[in-house]
Amino acid sequence: MADASSVSATTPVRRALISVSDKTGIVEFARALRTRGVELLSTGGTFRLLRDNDIEVTEVSEYTGFPEIMDGRVKTLHPRIHGGILGRRGEDDAVMKEHDIPPIDMVVVNLYPFEATVARPDCSLEEAIENIDIGGPTMVRACAKNHAYTTIVVSSDDHARVLESMDRHENGVDASLRFDLAVRAFEHTAGYDAAISRYLGRRVEEDDMPRTWTTQYYKRQSMRYGENPHQQAAFYVDREAPEACVATAEQLQGKALSYNNVADTDAALECVKSFDDAACVIVKHANPCGVGISVEGSLAQAYELAFATDSESAFGGIIAFNRELDGETARRIVERQFVEVIIAPRISQAAREAVAVKKNVRLLECGEWPNERTPDVDYKRVSGGLLVQSRDIGTIRREDLKVVTDRAPSEQELDDLLFAWRVAKFVKSNAIVYARNGQTVGVGAGQMSRVNSARIAAIKAEQAGLEVRGSVMASDAFFPFRDGIDNAAAVGVTAVIQPGGSVRDEEVITAANEAGMTMVFTGMRHFRH
Amino acid sequence: MADASSVSATTPVRRALISVSDKTGIVEFARALRTRGVELLSTGGTFRLLRDNDIEVTEVSEYTGFPEIMDGRVKTLHPRIHGGILGRRGEDDAVMKEHDIPPIDMVVVNLYPFEATVARPDCSLEEAIENIDIGGPTMVRACAKNHAYTTIVVSSDDHARVLESMDRHENGVDASLRFDLAVRAFEHTAGYDAAISRYLGRRVEEDDMPRTWTTQYYKRQSMRYGENPHQQAAFYVDREAPEACVATAEQLQGKALSYNNVADTDAALECVKSFDDAACVIVKHANPCGVGISVEGSLAQAYELAFATDSESAFGGIIAFNRELDGETARRIVERQFVEVIIAPRISQAAREAVAVKKNVRLLECGEWPNERTPDVDYKRVSGGLLVQSRDIGTIRREDLKVVTDRAPSEQELDDLLFAWRVAKFVKSNAIVYARNGQTVGVGAGQMSRVNSARIAAIKAEQAGLEVRGSVMASDAFFPFRDGIDNAAAVGVTAVIQPGGSVRDEEVITAANEAGMTMVFTGMRHFRH
Repeated sequence: MADASSVSATTPVRRALISVSDKTGIVEFARALRTRGVELLSTGGTFRLLRDNDIEVTEVSEYTGFPEIMDGRVKTLHPRIHGGILGRRGEDDAVMKEHDIPPIDMVVVNLYPFEATVARPDCSLEEAIENIDIGGPTMVRACAKNHAYTTIVVSSDDHARVLESMDRHENGVDASLRFDLAVRAFEHTAGYDAAISRYLGRRVEEDDMPRTWTTQYYKRQSMRYGENPHQQAAFYVDREAPEACVATAEQLQGKALSYNNVADTDAALECVKSFDDAACVIVKHANPCGVGISVEGSLAQAYELAFATDSESAFGGIIAFNRELDGETARRIVERQFVEVIIAPRISQAAREAVAVKKNVRLLECGEWPNERTPDVDYKRVSGGLLVQSRDIGTIRREDLKVVTDRAPSEQELDDLLFAWRVAKFVKSNAIVYARNGQTVGVGAGQMSRVNSARIAAIKAEQAGLEVRGSVMASDAFFPFRDGIDNAAAVGVTAVIQPGGSVRDEEVITAANEAGMTMVFTGMRHFRH
Repeated sequence: MADASSVSATTPVRRALISVSDKTGIVEFARALRTRGVELLSTGGTFRLLRDNDIEVTEVSEYTGFPEIMDGRVKTLHPRIHGGILGRRGEDDAVMKEHDIPPIDMVVVNLYPFEATVARPDCSLEEAIENIDIGGPTMVRACAKNHAYTTIVVSSDDHARVLESMDRHENGVDASLRFDLAVRAFEHTAGYDAAISRYLGRRVEEDDMPRTWTTQYYKRQSMRYGENPHQQAAFYVDREAPEACVATAEQLQGKALSYNNVADTDAALECVKSFDDAACVIVKHANPCGVGISVEGSLAQAYELAFATDSESAFGGIIAFNRELDGETARRIVERQFVEVIIAPRISQAAREAVAVKKNVRLLECGEWPNERTPDVDYKRVSGGLLVQSRDIGTIRREDLKVVTDRAPSEQELDDLLFAWRVAKFVKSNAIVYARNGQTVGVGAGQMSRVNSARIAAIKAEQAGLEVRGSVMASDAFFPFRDGIDNAAAVGVTAVIQPGGSVRDEEVITAANEAGMTMVFTGMRHFRH
C-alpha cells in the first residue's frame, strides 16, 4: 500500500505545464484545469493545439524569457521551469522568490513511445535518435521526485481522477494519488529508456541480442502463491501481447487463476493453436496428456479423443480448444470430469450456461489468433542469470518432410505423423508421442532417455486400453540408436516422424526398412524442457 | 555491429563536464583531460575533489551565472549546459554563439546506484526519494543523444579507451566508441529508473510485487542457438549474482556453454548445493538422473553412486559436485563417460590435468556458496506475459518432519528420507525418488500422474539392477490416493516422505501402517515444472 508518510498535505494546483505526445483528452483536461483557475504553460504542438482551442496558455519560451532553440532540443531545460517543479514548498520559498521562480504544481507530460518510432520499417537510426526526448523525461522525473508537493500526469487515463481529487480538495490533489502518479511516472521513464537501450543495444552486438536485456512487464494479477504455497507470485503481461493468449484472455467465470493454471493454460492454448482441424488439448503438469482432432469440426469428438488418451491424468487438467466452444462439449466436460480451466477463442452462450453449474471452473475466452505464430522471446531463469531465446515457432508443413525409408507414408499416416509431431513439440523432452486417427494414443514425457519416453508412451496406451498397433510415432529429437525404432516396430508402430541428423541415421533408417515402417525427417528439433 | 552511419567524423574535445557519484579514477582521468587541454566544469563533491587535487576546474554555477539552489536540486538544468551538450556542431553554431553557449564535448557523469540506497536497512522513503538524481540522468541522456558530436562517459572502465582514442585522433574520440558509450549511457539510465520503479512500485501494491516488473540483465555470452538450432539465444546475468552460481562460474576449459548446458548446469549445481555431505548430481534433460553422497567425504564414491543410478542417461550429462574436485574423481569421469559439463566450487590442479585430455569437456569452477540459499526471483515465460515468483528456497530440516505412522523412521531411514526429499525438489513434477544409503535408486520424473512417476522410478531401478527393497520414497507433492503407497509397499519401500495435506491423508496413512512402513510429512510441497 502507498506509504504516504513522506507526502505532505494537499496543496492547491495553481500552475501546470502541459506538453504531451499522446494528445488524447488533453484539450478537455486543459480546459478543466483553466476552469479551476490553473495557469497553463506549454510548448510546441501542445501549445498550438490549446491556443487553437481558445484555451489561455503561455508558451514556455515566453515564460522563461529564453527562446526555443536547436529545433526544440532545449526548451524546458531552464532553472525557471525546473526550479518551479523541484522547489520544496515551505523550505525553498525564499530562494524561489529571490530568483523569480514561481512554483509549477503540476506537470502533464507523456513521451512518444520509442518502440513505435523504431517499429516503422523506414525508420533510420538518425530518426530514432532524433526522437529521443530529453526535456520530457526530465520534467516527468523532476515532478515525480517532488510528488510531496506536485502532481505528475503521464497518462490520459488519470485525468478524471486528478480532477475529482481537485474538486474534493479545493484544487489540491490528495497525497496518495500524487504518490501513485509518481510511481507511474518512473514506470513510464523506465520503460522509455528500456526501449531505447534495447534498440541501440542491438547495434553494438554481433547478433540481434542487445547488450543489456531491459524489459518492462505490467502486473495483471497478484497471486496467493506461486508454483508452491511457500512462494510469492504475480502475473505480469506485455504492454501489447503479440496475439490472443492466456495473458489477454477474458475470464468469464471461476476462481482466480493460480500460477500453475496460467502456465498450463499457456501450454494447452499454444499447443491447440498448432492445429487447423477442430482440436482439443488437455494439459496436466505442463504436458499435454491427451490431444484429439476432428476433421468433421466437432469439438465434442476432439474432446472425447483427447480425454480417452489418459483419463486419469485428465482429472484436474486444463482443456483448450481452437474453435468456439459449444454447449454440448462444455456440458460433457463438466459432467464427466474435474477441470481447472477451459479456454477457447470464443465461448458460446450455451457453453457459458453449461459451465455455470460448476462455479469454480475457470472459463476463459481469448479471441482468435492469426494463422502464423508471432515471433517473440522466451526465457529460462537460472540462478544469477536469464537465458533469453526466440520462442519456438518453427513449424513443419507436409512439403518439408523428407521420406527416408523405402516405403512412403500413406495419406492417413502422413496426417497422423504431422498430428503427432505438433503434439510432440509441446511435450517436455525427451518426448515420444504415439498417435492414430487424430488421437494421441500414448504420450511419453520428460524422460532422461528417449527409450524410456517410448516405453512410457506404450505403458500409457496400455493403461488407456488404446491399441498401439497401426499407430505412428513422433520423437522431438533424433534417435541416437536403432533400438528406439526396433521397440516401436515391436509394438506395431508403422510410421515415424523425427528430425533426423544423428551420426547413426543410416542404422536407424535400416531398422525402419527392415520392419517395413515408413519414416520421415523434419530437419527441425523441438526440445522443450 | 555499430551502425556508425549517423556518427560524424571525430571532433576534438575542448570542454568536459564532470560530476560523478562513483569517483574511481576520476582525479587521474580529469588530470589526463587537462593535460590534453580540455577545460573542465564540475559540481559539488566532484568539484571539490578536483580542486583539492590542484586540477583547474570551473564550478557549474559560476559557468552558468546561476547559483546552485535548493540544496543542489537545480544545478545543471540550465540552457548554457544543455545547449552546450545538445547543440549540433555545424548546424547550431550560430544560435550557440548568439546565446553565448560554448559547446560541451564530453560529459562524465554516473549515478549513485539506487539499489544501494534502498538496500540500507535504515533507508526511509524520504531518503530514497531525495537520492533520486534529476540533473545527472538528464546530462547523461542529452550527451548520449548527441553522440554524433559528443562523448558520454558513465563508467571508469571506459576512461582508458577514451584517452587512447583521443591520443589517436588529435583529442577527438572516434565515432564507433562514441556510439558504444552512448548505448552504455542509456543502459545506465534505464537500469536506474528500473530500480526506482521497482522500489516505488512495491509501495502501491498490496503484496511485495511491484506494479511493473522492470529489470535489467547484462549479456554474458551470445550463443550459436537456443534450446533448438532454429532459435536464437544469449545468456544474460544479474548485475550482482546473489551467490556462486552458473552465471558467475569461471570456465577453465572446453567448448562454449550452450543454452541447454547453462540450464542443466544450473539444475545440477542448485541440487548439489542442498547436501551437507560430499555429493554428486548428474543432470540430463533438466532432471537429476543420479545423485549420490559420501559420508566419508569421497567425491569419487558419490560419483559412483550417482552414475550407477542410471548409467544410460548419465551419458552426455552434466555433473556437479559440492566439494573441490580431486584428480581421481575427474579421471574416473572422463575415462568412463561422455560428459558435457563438470562444475564444482573448486577444481584441483590434478583434476584440471585429468580433464585436459578431453578438450571439449566444459570444466567450471564456481566458488563456495553460503549455507543458506539467497532469496531471489524465478520466472516462467508464457505467451504475452511473465509469471514472477520468489524462487523455491524452502528447506526441510530433521526437526520439521512430522511422523504420521505407528512406526517412526530409523536413523538410516531418516537420513535417506531427507536425502531423497532434497533430490525430489529438483526433479520435474510429478516427482518420485527412490533412494537408499545415500544413493538414488530410481528417479521418476515429469509425469502427469503420480502413480506413473512411481512406476517409472521402479522401472529405472530395475534397469540399473538396483534393489528397491529397503529403499525410501520421496514424493514432491501429496499422494491423492492410497494406491501410491500400496504400490511402493509392494516393491519393498519401507519409508515415505511427502508433504501431506491431501483430503485422503488418513487413508494414505492407514495404507502405510498396514504395510509396516514409516511415513513423515514435510508440510512443504516442491512442484517444479
